[in-house]
Amino acid sequence: MTTARLSHIPTLFPPTTTTTATTAASNPIRTILSFKPSLSPSHKPSKILSSLRPDYTPNHISDPNYIRIFDTTLRDGEQSPGATMTTKEKLDIARQLAKLGVDIIEAGFPASSEADLDAVKLIAKEVGNVAGEDGGHVPVVCGLARCNKNDIDKAWEAVKYARFPRIHTFIATSEIHMRYKLKMSKEEVVEKARSMVVYARSLGCEDVEFSPEDAGRSERDFLYEILGEVIKAGATTLNIPDTVGYNWPREFGQLIADIKANTPGIENVIISTHCQNDLGLSTANTLEGAYNGARQLEVTINGIGERAGNASLEEVVMTLKCKGELLGGLYTGINTRHIVMTSKMVEEYSGLQVQPHKAIVGANAFAHESGIHQDGMLKNKSTYEIMSPEDIGLFRSNESGLTLGKLSGRHALKTKLFELGYDIEGKELNDLFWRFKSVAEMKKVITDDDLIALVSDEVFQPKVVWKFGDVQVTCGTLGLSTATVKLVCDDGKEHIACSTGTGPVDAAYKAVDLIVKAPVKLLEYSMSAVTAGIDAIASTRVVIATENDHTETHVSGEKIARTYSGTGASMDIVISSVRAYVGAINKMLGLLKQQSN
Amino acid sequence: MTTARLSHIPTLFPPTTTTTATTAASNPIRTILSFKPSLSPSHKPSKILSSLRPDYTPNHISDPNYIRIFDTTLRDGEQSPGATMTTKEKLDIARQLAKLGVDIIEAGFPASSEADLDAVKLIAKEVGNVAGEDGGHVPVVCGLARCNKNDIDKAWEAVKYARFPRIHTFIATSEIHMRYKLKMSKEEVVEKARSMVVYARSLGCEDVEFSPEDAGRSERDFLYEILGEVIKAGATTLNIPDTVGYNWPREFGQLIADIKANTPGIENVIISTHCQNDLGLSTANTLEGAYNGARQLEVTINGIGERAGNASLEEVVMTLKCKGELLGGLYTGINTRHIVMTSKMVEEYSGLQVQPHKAIVGANAFAHESGIHQDGMLKNKSTYEIMSPEDIGLFRSNESGLTLGKLSGRHALKTKLFELGYDIEGKELNDLFWRFKSVAEMKKVITDDDLIALVSDEVFQPKVVWKFGDVQVTCGTLGLSTATVKLVCDDGKEHIACSTGTGPVDAAYKAVDLIVKAPVKLLEYSMSAVTAGIDAIASTRVVIATENDHTETHVSGEKIARTYSGTGASMDIVISSVRAYVGAINKMLGLLKQQSN
Repeated sequence: MTTARLSHIPTLFPPTTTTTATTAASNPIRTILSFKPSLSPSHKPSKILSSLRPDYTPNHISDPNYIRIFDTTLRDGEQSPGATMTTKEKLDIARQLAKLGVDIIEAGFPASSEADLDAVKLIAKEVGNVAGEDGGHVPVVCGLARCNKNDIDKAWEAVKYARFPRIHTFIATSEIHMRYKLKMSKEEVVEKARSMVVYARSLGCEDVEFSPEDAGRSERDFLYEILGEVIKAGATTLNIPDTVGYNWPREFGQLIADIKANTPGIENVIISTHCQNDLGLSTANTLEGAYNGARQLEVTINGIGERAGNASLEEVVMTLKCKGELLGGLYTGINTRHIVMTSKMVEEYSGLQVQPHKAIVGANAFAHESGIHQDGMLKNKSTYEIMSPEDIGLFRSNESGLTLGKLSGRHALKTKLFELGYDIEGKELNDLFWRFKSVAEMKKVITDDDLIALVSDEVFQPKVVWKFGDVQVTCGTLGLSTATVKLVCDDGKEHIACSTGTGPVDAAYKAVDLIVKAPVKLLEYSMSAVTAGIDAIASTRVVIATENDHTETHVSGEKIARTYSGTGASMDIVISSVRAYVGAINKMLGLLKQQSN
Repeated sequence: MTTARLSHIPTLFPPTTTTTATTAASNPIRTILSFKPSLSPSHKPSKILSSLRPDYTPNHISDPNYIRIFDTTLRDGEQSPGATMTTKEKLDIARQLAKLGVDIIEAGFPASSEADLDAVKLIAKEVGNVAGEDGGHVPVVCGLARCNKNDIDKAWEAVKYARFPRIHTFIATSEIHMRYKLKMSKEEVVEKARSMVVYARSLGCEDVEFSPEDAGRSERDFLYEILGEVIKAGATTLNIPDTVGYNWPREFGQLIADIKANTPGIENVIISTHCQNDLGLSTANTLEGAYNGARQLEVTINGIGERAGNASLEEVVMTLKCKGELLGGLYTGINTRHIVMTSKMVEEYSGLQVQPHKAIVGANAFAHESGIHQDGMLKNKSTYEIMSPEDIGLFRSNESGLTLGKLSGRHALKTKLFELGYDIEGKELNDLFWRFKSVAEMKKVITDDDLIALVSDEVFQPKVVWKFGDVQVTCGTLGLSTATVKLVCDDGKEHIACSTGTGPVDAAYKAVDLIVKAPVKLLEYSMSAVTAGIDAIASTRVVIATENDHTETHVSGEKIARTYSGTGASMDIVISSVRAYVGAINKMLGLLKQQSN
């Protein structure tokens, strides 16, 4: 039996008395999974990229082999269940997408809610006017709008502040959608599309994208007709969505080829693809689209989106990088070394976790490497490797490199974070340093995962309404789970409550509810996998909604309920759970307040 | 402040005193995610399927449009990090694969370890001789072997008990692999392949599959030559792997077409595909293979496997089901209504969780449905739906249907479980009923998720060495996390230990370590997302290894460390964590014992 150490250290993290803690360094299997994101090599502006990326003209690309990457993580991705993001989170992601070098950022659907309009406007101002690291690239900022004046007005109101603003409008063109959803005739649909593109141009927007929704199931001749009309009306990009993810590659490629061959005026616009992933074919469909003439590809980070999501940026871009020659020399302007960091940020903010065997960005995607090196049998890396982890910004955790401990200073922490891809300064660095020191008191070795968990807890947080104070819990099979919680309100007052529950987390959440008194429904509770011993820092995530459903408009016209996520990190799972819950409540209260202003 | 209820209920689950618990029924968003697996409609034998599936002849299929599905979840899938399964788990999955109607089960790599040989042998005996539900289908049971006599002997020793045994042997044929890995000349490789196929046939095995490893990067003429030689030697299936996941669909389709056109004797064998998913193209590559003449497709459930995994059975099969006509009328013998249940079982046993936006089997894959129904705008389901959830065995949780509560009896529980896809009887049902009653004392409504978590805790468990007794924990920001644990050994003796730790789970695990005294390394700790309020039952999963690395042989010839997973379920996360840890330890001790016998 172990006896408790007597010295009491007044910190969030109680000490351990045993010395058998598993650390990353002592664990050979762990090294398989220990690639870490790093942006360092690409923090220097890349001359090569800027010289390769053609100047932006809405309806024309000077190099016929250049592929524009249109990222819709913030629009299509954000409408996944539980993926609602705050304005700050969206802005962070937009900045990261600009670093990554995407050509067009679809920042939202401004008519869906005031909050979305504000977020798109902020991104247009803050990200849509700043030249990126590659020496001059400023991304296009795009807003989605249905084919009606109100939506288009709202989209323009939001995007017009960008240097390159774009409005993306859409209407369904398949028989089944026109009949059952729109209840409009073909002629009415053509007229609506034509007149709304004219209207968007009349507002002063010189960059208008048009999508015939459910193009994959639309009648060919009707498609050519409506697309020809919107080109005449002033559309500059025509996006062809496989809305229900029903096409297979040959079929989708043929659709793009047919449109290219038969649409009057098509030579004056850019053809785009937007492939859903319902059958797992979105990446292949997107590539077939490019092979057959599309020069804009719509994708999301990690492939998130409604249902089975969209084509994923990392798969499409890395295939073009590896196989571009076979596709006729196609290439993109993406700085692939930012892929891992972008993937982690989107995973964090959207709450949509990536499976270990996800291509390119899954935890196991490069795990084979270790075996090869351990074994020493294979001298040549390319026996199993088609791309290097460094290409996407994954750097092997180098045990001979910088290791942090309790004597490490602020500068060492800042340097290590930079290696991990985080550029953190000022108050955020200070707060983080304080947390780091208290953890370092308990653990001999602070792993990269520990640091990443702390960053998500300290940096990726919403504005504070309720601040976490203390928690105290008793539980187990032999008694009633009981929790006492202390929160501090933004007026500085301390509130304390206690409750019992079915388990320690349930009891603690009920105590929080007694203090906050907001109508909260808990929808989901989850935890990131911990992979470096159970004394590592665990990240907990919760998704909540208000009891009084707070809705926004979906692109289909339906009202959908907003949901809010929060994360918390600690070596104590009860503490991390309470932090996450309070974080989600802060996010909810913040957005509700923004809405009511 | 809530006061605790005084009546003490002696159960694993302490009661809650608040009445604001979120339940599935009160949560509108929850209904979006509440499709549940059910096998009920397909528990009746399907006459249609058995009449469609041609009789089995190794090198010939009487219907040129029939596609054989070769599942390698138990071989390629099981070698993913952390996915090691016990013999019982493998047998369960093999039985489920037989129900699903796969044509060939690759049950393992018998030369890799004694445990794997035993598992393949057991599957050959138990699953390889039993006619399935569709009235007559008995799956082929296949074992993998490198091109050497020892491997082939072991494979035959294991599979020979099946009604349709198959040996699958392979050797690398790409320049890069032959030079750096095999260090053999082309002539030596051809001779090795030829002679080993002859050897396999000489043992009495009439069904021999041959794979040229890294075919995607092999020289074409050399491929035709070696494939022609192994056909002459008696191979009946030629499998063409894209080992590094490097091909894109047109390229892989062309490879299959070229092999079909240029290999002498190819008309006498079946061509097969095996596509890795490194670029996210495995499903499309597999389908292009079929389009160009392959009639066996190698896949895994959920697409698991090394690195980014393999083509996933559900994506390939559902695309063929939805789009088979466009691929020339191709079809499979898979009973798709068993897909969800199989997916859940593999997720559970392999520990490789499926992302919410995974095609077909992800939690969000059919989530759009709800919006459509809520809105009522869309009268016609097919506006967004290309397949129905029922096709893959997902049934909407029907609130007007059977709801379980504390008054429900054993029969109601059995019926509900059957609806959820579980056919449970006897002692397992009894144990489950006991747990169910104790939960029902605490919670007004027992959700489907609660039941599924209980099943995974009670039914999907390894043989018990150490039995969980009690745990008692104190933790929080104000003191030292301290845990006391009681375990019962298989000799009936009770052992108690206590420890402090960095958090409640760390403390409890250290107390378990003090009792078990086995050299355990914790590699991963995770939790399934809880989606029905925090008083729901949480499933915790851990992956461990021994400190003294216990290895097996990988297909590449390397030694790799075995890892063991365990799951536990409870409304108290500390209890579920201890259950999971003890489960993993039991699995490890069980397999080590089996090894030393």
